[in-house]
Formats: sequence, structure tokens, C-alpha cells
Amino acid sequence: MHEPTTAAVPAYVADGPEIYRRSFAIIRDEADLSHLPDDAHDLVVRMIHSCGMVDLAADTEISPGAVAAAHSALAGGAPILCDAMMVASGITRRFLPAGNDVVCTLNDPDVPAKAALLNTTRTAAALDLWMPLLEGAVVAIGNAPTALFRLLELIEAGAPRPAVVLGLPVGFVGAMESKAALAAYGSLEHVVVHGRRGGSAMTVGAVNALALGAQQ
Amino acid sequence: MHEPTTAAVPAYVADGPEIYRRSFAIIRDEADLSHLPDDAHDLVVRMIHSCGMVDLAADTEISPGAVAAAHSALAGGAPILCDAMMVASGITRRFLPAGNDVVCTLNDPDVPAKAALLNTTRTAAALDLWMPLLEGAVVAIGNAPTALFRLLELIEAGAPRPAVVLGLPVGFVGAMESKAALAAYGSLEHVVVHGRRGGSAMTVGAVNALALGAQQ
Repeated sequence: MHEPTTAAVPAYVADGPEIYRRSFAIIRDEADLSHLPDDAHDLVVRMIHSCGMVDLAADTEISPGAVAAAHSALAGGAPILCDAMMVASGITRRFLPAGNDVVCTLNDPDVPAKAALLNTTRTAAALDLWMPLLEGAVVAIGNAPTALFRLLELIEAGAPRPAVVLGLPVGFVGAMESKAALAAYGSLEHVVVHGRRGGSAMTVGAVNALALGAQQ
Repeated sequence: MHEPTTAAVPAYVADGPEIYRRSFAIIRDEADLSHLPDDAHDLVVRMIHSCGMVDLAADTEISPGAVAAAHSALAGGAPILCDAMMVASGITRRFLPAGNDVVCTLNDPDVPAKAALLNTTRTAAALDLWMPLLEGAVVAIGNAPTALFRLLELIEAGAPRPAVVLGLPVGFVGAMESKAALAAYGSLEHVVVHGRRGGSAMTVGAVNALALGAQQ
């Protein structure tokens, strides 16, 4: 405990590992994870940790094979394909079990022209550059519903299939619908938070949890 | 509207500016911003947009001069000091009104030794490297409660004063207490989300909103 030097700043825990331990204990005490696969609990605890909301678990849907598929893909060196630079930036590189590549194609110079041609967002157009990497990859979509819709369209059209899709776009227009479409798709291993919640921090928490799990 | 090519993917809005327009309209329709300063509404709309939760407004506290102070500081070229790389990564550089520097000192090679010496987290120790930049800066804390506690300790000890502090750490141990301490501090312009919610995506949404406001 860091002791106060003045009345304006209270005593606080300043030991990083102890903060993690206490946080995870609070989450496991308060969150109801019983409807989720047993091997997904560590994952959901870190997703909750990223957003401060234990009721996130109630909106979370994880396909039964998703966590094992992600661990196996990551241990085997699969790349992590991210829709947003913030997602790519947040992934803790030392957690990755095989020096996995973390890829975000959003700022590729070809993307604006491709978005205009396809009449879609830059984030969705950036996915076309994933094609050579998509087979067996870990896909982490934490920002744009259009990216998740585009992924499903590409797979419908015969694109290679990723090992698992983290479908966690956030927001008010299309986010809920894109996540429902992924969960209903049927043949893709997936991690979804239904509704409006999601985002890059939660997606990073999920990738980091899966990477740590793959190291074990 | 992007029309479906197969039954597996529904029609969706694929026009980026239109997605923003509709999202902000939904937020303004659903969120109660009446307790917040008038000039803070655009800011809170973008914070809500970043997390998908209109009830965030109820936990948000913004000091009456915070938004004007942030606009003035940013227009005058003040640096933006971030506690986490994800926050620094997410800030949209083209929104910045004066090519403002975005600074995160967390990965400075001196930080681990400083954290050990101070018996605190790396994130808190990294703040000591802000000292030459802190006067009149925009401080954006989106991850670590210990960073916010450390900032208040440094200011109590006579450090230069920032123009405004975005106090938005997330989590279960210390986050709520650190934000309450900032709001109670009295003489610092602040933006706070009370409770456990917060995080890097919300903090980026706040900085981006303030940068856009400063351009006007």
C-alpha cells in the first residue's frame, strides 16, 4: 500500500502484480461465467478487466471450440489480423507464444482507392489485403462493424477461413447486427459480445488472454 | 446501404460519414446530457460513441472550465501526455489543431529502474518524465489508476499544472478512488467517469473530440 503524503491523495495499491491479482479475484467473485465454455473463463475475465463491467459476461457468446482453436493457432505461429491500429498497438508482444505477426492493413496506401471502388469504408476495404494471411489466422475486429460484415462476405465468396474470429465491434449502427451475423454464421469459431458494447480495449484484452493461454 | 449478396450477411450501412451521423443522432436522442456543461456535450457524445453506452453520461463529471481550457491549450500547441501506448496510438493526428505532440513515456528505458526505486508501477513512474512538458499540457490517463494518483502527488509536491486532466482509468482496484480524488482535488480542470468504467478507447474518443472542438 502506497501511503498518503497529503490529505488530497489517499493511500493506494501501487504493486502492479497485486493490482492484477486483486482485480481478477473481484471479477471471479462477481461475474457469472457459468453459461460460457470452461476453457473460456480466463478469456472472459480479461475482457471484463479491460472494461470494468462484470455484466459483460451476460452478453458474451463463445463457440465451444473457439478458445482451443485460438490457442492452437497462436502456438503454431498464426498471424493476428486487426481492423484498427489501436488493437494492433495494444497487443502485448511478450505474451505471444511464437513471435506471431500482428497485422493491421488500414493504413496501406492502396486502401483509400479500394474503399472508393468497393463503395465501402476504409476499414472494410483494408480486409481485402488480408487474403494471403487469412487461412488459419486469428482475426481481431474491435472497431468497425463494416469490417466484420466484409469478412463474412469474403468468406461466403470463398476466401480462406480463419481459425477464430473475435467479433467485438462497438457502437450504434451495425455493431449489434454484425455480431449477430457472425454468431449465426454457424461454421466459424467465434467470440462475440452481443449488443452495442465492444471496442479496441476489450479486443486487446481478449487477444492478450488467448496469447497467455497459448503459452501454457 | 450495402445490399446482401447471400442470406448469411444482411444489408448494412457502408458509408463511413453516414455511420457517424446516425450514431451521433442516436446518442443525442437517447443520452441525458442535461447535468453536463453545454460546451461538453460534443465531448460526451464521442465518449459514449467509443463505448456504446449512453448511460455513461450519468457517471460523467466535467468541471465547468475543462472544455474551454482544453480547446485553448490544444489550439495553443500544448502537448498531449498519455499514460498508455494505446491512448497515444488512437489519437487521430489530423484532428490536432496545432500539430500537437502526443507523448507516452511508458517505454522509456529509464522507467523500470525508476519504478523499482519509487516502489510503484511502471505507468506511475513514467509520469516523472512528463515534468518538463506538464505546464499547460492536456493529460490523458486512460489506463492506470496509479498514474492518476501519482499525478496528484506530483502536483501536491509542487509540479507544474496541466491545463486539463482527463481522468479515465478503468478497472476494479483503485480506478474509482483515483477518479474521485481528481474530482475532489478542487483546482484542476477535469473530465472524469466515476466508477469502474473508463479505458483507452474512451480516452481517445475524448481527446479526439477536444481536438476537433479546438479546430473550430
